[in-house]
Amino acid sequence: MRFADATAMRAAGPGRWVGEQIAGWDINDNANGGVVLAMAARAMAMAADRPDPLTITAHYLRPVQAGPVSVEATVVKAGRRLSTVSAQLIQNEQPALQLVGSFGDVTAMSGMTLVTGERPVFAPPEDCVSTRQSGFSPAPMGNIDVRLLPGDARFGDGEGSGAATMRGWFRLSADEPLDVFAVLFALDGFPPAVFNANLAVGWVPTVELTGHIRRRPQSDWLQAQIRSRYIFGGFLEEDVELWDDHGLVALGRQLAMLPLG
Amino acid sequence: MRFADATAMRAAGPGRWVGEQIAGWDINDNANGGVVLAMAARAMAMAADRPDPLTITAHYLRPVQAGPVSVEATVVKAGRRLSTVSAQLIQNEQPALQLVGSFGDVTAMSGMTLVTGERPVFAPPEDCVSTRQSGFSPAPMGNIDVRLLPGDARFGDGEGSGAATMRGWFRLSADEPLDVFAVLFALDGFPPAVFNANLAVGWVPTVELTGHIRRRPQSDWLQAQIRSRYIFGGFLEEDVELWDDHGLVALGRQLAMLPLG
Repeated sequence: MRFADATAMRAAGPGRWVGEQIAGWDINDNANGGVVLAMAARAMAMAADRPDPLTITAHYLRPVQAGPVSVEATVVKAGRRLSTVSAQLIQNEQPALQLVGSFGDVTAMSGMTLVTGERPVFAPPEDCVSTRQSGFSPAPMGNIDVRLLPGDARFGDGEGSGAATMRGWFRLSADEPLDVFAVLFALDGFPPAVFNANLAVGWVPTVELTGHIRRRPQSDWLQAQIRSRYIFGGFLEEDVELWDDHGLVALGRQLAMLPLG
Repeated sequence: MRFADATAMRAAGPGRWVGEQIAGWDINDNANGGVVLAMAARAMAMAADRPDPLTITAHYLRPVQAGPVSVEATVVKAGRRLSTVSAQLIQNEQPALQLVGSFGDVTAMSGMTLVTGERPVFAPPEDCVSTRQSGFSPAPMGNIDVRLLPGDARFGDGEGSGAATMRGWFRLSADEPLDVFAVLFALDGFPPAVFNANLAVGWVPTVELTGHIRRRPQSDWLQAQIRSRYIFGGFLEEDVELWDDHGLVALGRQLAMLPLG
């Protein structure tokens, strides 16, 4: 199933949109955090009547399972360049995600440019390892094409690289082009970087994820560099940078929870 | 005036807190973004009945001026380790900040630790330049003690370092100890890093600021390293790391707007 169809939302009254969380886009029956973020963001963009989530934050309250979801979205400010939307994604009458985002048009360029962050240089997708062949293949990995650097792909066999780093590539299946909502998916579409640190962490649930979409993707593949530098006190941050052949596409950071020691 | 008094909030009915934006904590008559964030966060922590903003996001809708403000806060989920709060800071019956945050107790430590980020090494506060003596001294700088590395402090004279970096130190005046809300203030308490890039940027209004408080500060001084790596397309990100003598205290990232070119 195409990502655009799996995450489609339709209007269902003032400030309300509905969709269907599809089985097969989950991890152990819980919807992938990036997929539900994309669904909420589609509804919020419609509420804002602006195309691009320049900055969006989701707090994850409860897991989402296969079945109907709704999004209630309120425009709290419609400005000249941006509209800000507060929203909730709801399933079974309980809030599952609490969100706020500012939407605009990333193609309204300014001339002022200074970029010192550098696109990472590493092996191309054809020399990387599909997560379908690695020891990590939750259901959404069947619907997307995620590839990891060979040295970053052995954590499933207990052979993490030793660094809390994950590097690789992301594209949609079936030649579906990337849109900005797929970029939000990609921000949470890789195995957690901490899996490579050999800390025996089984799962790290996302508390909060913030994404900045800085450019619409113009290539089929997104190149991803992910790392966690501060793992302590029961929490960790995970930073993601996504690039295409034309430069930076998005920045993401999440706060995730460690199992209590 | 002490920061704790300047940002105090008191209950004013169910889900509502009130306070007073104090003159002298502003920049050209607009309240500093970190000060209003701290006010909102105090109200949200009371709503959550939990002490620490583990992760908080504010979208800045309108400037706040001296005078009364209120915060309306709703607990959307109270969990075992975290409570998530949606809130709005209001002035003159208009929303000025839209917020969401998850609150908990950062002293509930886990044993799992892997820290690879490194505290920067640079000149101590006594060898740095007070923003009161630099070319940048908006009103809140009289209420806090912010010092910049000498090489990062000459942007006011048109002699920026050339890099979009700002490094220095932050403490409250009058020996007031830092609390987690002062840390939120510090996340937006320095001149923008882009001022050192010699791009002739007059101001960069914050669209959104997210802070992760990872530890309560245990020293008087916070050491700050701030940088913007992706200045393009009408926006820039600014990343902040705050440290004390015991390690990382907080991470912050904001999306700010460039003047249209």
